[in-house]
Amino acid sequence: MFFASDNSGPVHPQVMAAVQAANEGYALGYGADAQMTEVRATLRDLFEAPEAAVYLVATGTAANSLALATLCQPWQTVFCAPHAHIHEDECNAPEFYSGGAKLTLVGSEDRMTADALRATILAEGTRGVHGPQRGPVSITQVTERGQVYSLDELQALTAVAKEFGLPAFMDGARFANALVALDCSPAEMTWKSGIDAVSFGGTKNGCMGVEAVVIFDPAKAWEFELRRKRGAHLFSKHRYLSAQMQGYLRDGLWLDTARAANAAAERLEAGLAGVAGVKLLFPRQANMLFIDAPRAWHQRMQAAGAVYYITRGELEGDDPDELLTGRFVCDWSIGAARVDQFLALAQG
Amino acid sequence: MFFASDNSGPVHPQVMAAVQAANEGYALGYGADAQMTEVRATLRDLFEAPEAAVYLVATGTAANSLALATLCQPWQTVFCAPHAHIHEDECNAPEFYSGGAKLTLVGSEDRMTADALRATILAEGTRGVHGPQRGPVSITQVTERGQVYSLDELQALTAVAKEFGLPAFMDGARFANALVALDCSPAEMTWKSGIDAVSFGGTKNGCMGVEAVVIFDPAKAWEFELRRKRGAHLFSKHRYLSAQMQGYLRDGLWLDTARAANAAAERLEAGLAGVAGVKLLFPRQANMLFIDAPRAWHQRMQAAGAVYYITRGELEGDDPDELLTGRFVCDWSIGAARVDQFLALAQG
Amino acid sequence: MFFASDNSGPVHPQVMAAVQAANEGYALGYGADAQMTEVRATLRDLFEAPEAAVYLVATGTAANSLALATLCQPWQTVFCAPHAHIHEDECNAPEFYSGGAKLTLVGSEDRMTADALRATILAEGTRGVHGPQRGPVSITQVTERGQVYSLDELQALTAVAKEFGLPAFMDGARFANALVALDCSPAEMTWKSGIDAVSFGGTKNGCMGVEAVVIFDPAKAWEFELRRKRGAHLFSKHRYLSAQMQGYLRDGLWLDTARAANAAAERLEAGLAGVAGVKLLFPRQANMLFIDAPRAWHQRMQAAGAVYYITRGELEGDDPDELLTGRFVCDWSIGAARVDQFLALAQG
Amino acid sequence: MFFASDNSGPVHPQVMAAVQAANEGYALGYGADAQMTEVRATLRDLFEAPEAAVYLVATGTAANSLALATLCQPWQTVFCAPHAHIHEDECNAPEFYSGGAKLTLVGSEDRMTADALRATILAEGTRGVHGPQRGPVSITQVTERGQVYSLDELQALTAVAKEFGLPAFMDGARFANALVALDCSPAEMTWKSGIDAVSFGGTKNGCMGVEAVVIFDPAKAWEFELRRKRGAHLFSKHRYLSAQMQGYLRDGLWLDTARAANAAAERLEAGLAGVAGVKLLFPRQANMLFIDAPRAWHQRMQAAGAVYYITRGELEGDDPDELLTGRFVCDWSIGAARVDQFLALAQG
Repeated sequence: MFFASDNSGPVHPQVMAAVQAANEGYALGYGADAQMTEVRATLRDLFEAPEAAVYLVATGTAANSLALATLCQPWQTVFCAPHAHIHEDECNAPEFYSGGAKLTLVGSEDRMTADALRATILAEGTRGVHGPQRGPVSITQVTERGQVYSLDELQALTAVAKEFGLPAFMDGARFANALVALDCSPAEMTWKSGIDAVSFGGTKNGCMGVEAVVIFDPAKAWEFELRRKRGAHLFSKHRYLSAQMQGYLRDGLWLDTARAANAAAERLEAGLAGVAGVKLLFPRQANMLFIDAPRAWHQRMQAAGAVYYITRGELEGDDPDELLTGRFVCDWSIGAARVDQFLALAQG
Repeated sequence: MFFASDNSGPVHPQVMAAVQAANEGYALGYGADAQMTEVRATLRDLFEAPEAAVYLVATGTAANSLALATLCQPWQTVFCAPHAHIHEDECNAPEFYSGGAKLTLVGSEDRMTADALRATILAEGTRGVHGPQRGPVSITQVTERGQVYSLDELQALTAVAKEFGLPAFMDGARFANALVALDCSPAEMTWKSGIDAVSFGGTKNGCMGVEAVVIFDPAKAWEFELRRKRGAHLFSKHRYLSAQMQGYLRDGLWLDTARAANAAAERLEAGLAGVAGVKLLFPRQANMLFIDAPRAWHQRMQAAGAVYYITRGELEGDDPDELLTGRFVCDWSIGAARVDQFLALAQG
Repeated sequence: MFFASDNSGPVHPQVMAAVQAANEGYALGYGADAQMTEVRATLRDLFEAPEAAVYLVATGTAANSLALATLCQPWQTVFCAPHAHIHEDECNAPEFYSGGAKLTLVGSEDRMTADALRATILAEGTRGVHGPQRGPVSITQVTERGQVYSLDELQALTAVAKEFGLPAFMDGARFANALVALDCSPAEMTWKSGIDAVSFGGTKNGCMGVEAVVIFDPAKAWEFELRRKRGAHLFSKHRYLSAQMQGYLRDGLWLDTARAANAAAERLEAGLAGVAGVKLLFPRQANMLFIDAPRAWHQRMQAAGAVYYITRGELEGDDPDELLTGRFVCDWSIGAARVDQFLALAQG
Repeated sequence: MFFASDNSGPVHPQVMAAVQAANEGYALGYGADAQMTEVRATLRDLFEAPEAAVYLVATGTAANSLALATLCQPWQTVFCAPHAHIHEDECNAPEFYSGGAKLTLVGSEDRMTADALRATILAEGTRGVHGPQRGPVSITQVTERGQVYSLDELQALTAVAKEFGLPAFMDGARFANALVALDCSPAEMTWKSGIDAVSFGGTKNGCMGVEAVVIFDPAKAWEFELRRKRGAHLFSKHRYLSAQMQGYLRDGLWLDTARAANAAAERLEAGLAGVAGVKLLFPRQANMLFIDAPRAWHQRMQAAGAVYYITRGELEGDDPDELLTGRFVCDWSIGAARVDQFLALAQG
């Protein structure tokens, strides 16, 4: 009953097998491996972007920071949601990689709206040389509260960005979970919706540690390569990154694992709907749920072996009825049985 | 006949098996995995440093840059050899991670001498607030030309550093190759010889992509952790880094692979000694050789399938007798047979 | 009728005379001038801080950025008010000088309250290594909306900072205007109220371009010197900075000019109180006023030669009754006559 | 008898008068002052560059660092002479402003030659993404040892830069001293000789603290403005910078003061030629001399009140005959009488 994070689960056997298969003899390093050639071609096909720059790094923070730095100047500010991973969970990596850019928070909700984005951009950048300059818009898809922007919403956000001549970046650490929720194509969720660069997450969805960065304007490719090397994110034995992505993409595994994770979350949602005192906080759209429940309930669940984070309130406390928020993330491997085991306890 | 680099070879089966073994169920991320607990303990034992801070990253450049940044201020300069990897092959990563520190080159040879180091330090740092301030001394062991500092030499260098109150860092991308060449203990080659922090390389010696950073003063630990996270080098699925290191350390595998690599280089050296027109440039001490040989010879070898870098001169050219320098690096997996195959050709 | 900014006025004759007087023969550069010796001693006396580090720079942004960088680590976040100059008007200079630190906005008002500060600090820094780490609290005195923190308020803010072990910085670009408003001593408004470092502004209050940075912990002195030099803010002909500050401090000129500026603002406030349709937005406490007035009134005033910024709304527009906000800043030289001239027009 | 530095002398009365004259009433800040309009036009005329971007900053290090950062990427290296001010005397400011670029030293002499520059550029930038990338060439005119590049030499250096597509920057802290030595026009010494940007020094030649940065490609203007603001080098009361430059440029004062300084150095050179035991180290071409003389001679001169730096050796020492190097810099104000006073002592 492990719902703490989708980065806590195991690597999918098909990914592991691809890593094993790559472990044969000598291979040129630093991205010149044969596996990378295949991965690049596959991702360009998937994104219907034959010219796109495609690179691999090992962490989501690296993907986000390097891509944003490539789209941003140090005197600019990045527009993002208040709970964006780049703001809350990367220990100033975007500021570091960009050389000191700022992050400007849009609205106070989990999701940015086009109106709030426009208002925020308008309020910023009115002070000539004195203020931070307007920079990229960063959109997290799936959001940190588990929500998925629709294509219309994405297009509305990027339209605002374009209105001001700003690039749009998608933090796609859970790209696959969003994609299967929207049931659209990678191209539709990215460049056809106005996205200029995207991190295409693998780690949370069955890989060991690999994220692709796809930049649709190939003129940015060389700068990204230099930034990746300078950031110490260019792997010498690069084939083991490539092989993960190879296994992940083969036969649509990445969509299968995302569907499995989302389905588990849906099952969890459905089951919790029948539990007295438990309230869903956001519409469940991908593989994550946030619920309010009384302290006593949380205590009982965790004592029974359920693992998940309390994101508001403290598990220990006097009032058994106080509502605490719990976050539940389903990874690809959790399966119906463990969800049902949890639900049986939840109702108990 | 692949001598291009020791980062081109395969992962040792024992390392791969450890990665596989780690792929079971859920594990806390970000270094809280059980494997890391074992790795930390093992490395502390190996280094006879029960308090040392021990961290894993995936690339040698990350290990070097993060460790140096932790020992350095942005207004300082790092003293290193002219061919140091941190100077020539990291695309300004040390400058980036340190926030703009400088690198000052010591002497003009592959190896720093204590006298040259002292002279260089004395020449630097005489201008008060105006000049760069003196910073860490960085020692590459094995050097980029394949040489190994003796313990006496290391101690002489770190004594100079201490004389000026400067910390000493060891870039140990080929730590194991040096250690077996010196036949000493990790403690003797590091803190007992005055080293304050070391990167303990795994990638070039049988791992997939993992380096340990060992900092002997635990007061630096938290800063290193923050720098690692901010640099996007903290892995969520950290267990797969830990597992590599676990497999690498188990039953002294790391020493075995280093001995195999050094032995192959020794065999190559011995064989080449009998080849007319081929001249060894540096004393072979670990797993790397540099040789001068006529262009025609190099052309013949490469045409026959030998893979290695020409580091001085161009393979294509008119004069068949012009001497070109070739670099040969033996990895753990090369084996006597392939060396002999090469030598047979070399003499032919 | 120039109310656009207190950095638009002339240099006080006494300051100019001191600069002239310094222009005699040769002097050692870089702060080793005799004038600086006097300035340092005078400021230490004024602040009752005989050990304090005292430095001069030429711009307020330099003073703020260098001082904050000295108190901050790149992975931390600075707590400040949403309208803080360091956030809105320094084009990411604090981020640049700190090496990529973040700024976290406290509350949504012009002034921070101790409660809002505590809540913001508590919300930040709960994510271990993942989130930005808690850093200095920066307090602008006078605020960007012209308000002055009382000593009680300052002490409440710095008490919260101390509760979390965080340093407190005062942006004192209008230090003198606040001091005469509070009628307290420099020591009371700074270290006796828990402030660790302060920028003591001269430029806006009668100087040409000089700000003192006073750091109460002398252990930070050398780092500040290196940061100042590295930031290109160490003047070779430093005596002309020192001389400005010398003239500014002599015979309490700095208090006289601040009193003159505040008195002019008070006169303006009193006069505007009688003008129909004009509404003061914040309590006037120093030398700045914000008023709401109908567009037609602003248009009339500016057509008549009044110079000031409209900070909300557009001067041009259809609706003559729409309320626009105007900012009025009185500098030391404005004088009662010009204020009265403006008021006569205002009522007309 | 003050020969320590040309930044130790007084401000020329004409410059001071211009500053005084600017001290009248209100003026818009941040470069929107009327004086700047005149200065911009005058410098564009002088440089025969009607489109050039022209900005003022207060220190030479700011001028160099900001201009270089505008021409450079963080992953590049700047080619410069080993004694370049940007390398030896700016406490890593170029590294800081560029975001971590490197400096690569060309040759081992005071002056770069085109051959040494080409060889150095060729040696750098051969490692693809791994090494630092080739960046701007920085030429100090007058050099730190008092030498002046001829137009032919400048053109040869910039031709090499252009061969590799690299921009060329001139550190002109002593621009005027070089110009009058060469007896050419500013355009000839800069863009007509292939220079892309130049710092046009005022501080060392009669100003208080002002340097112009002239960038011949106006497309770089806005980036420079943002960098200047972000670096805290944009003055609010900018008119006092402008006024200095205005006074400096009026009626060719800047050429007169440079001629006076050079003439004093020439007089000093001529006089020292007749002093037994004193040997000139470099051809005297501008306002600086380096001489070798016995310790006893230096001791006698300094005891008699001559002020200058010993740049090699220690004034205190046992051997009266040991040769020490002294550096003599003549500023605009030194005059023949003080030179003669020194020479009389020198021969005594």
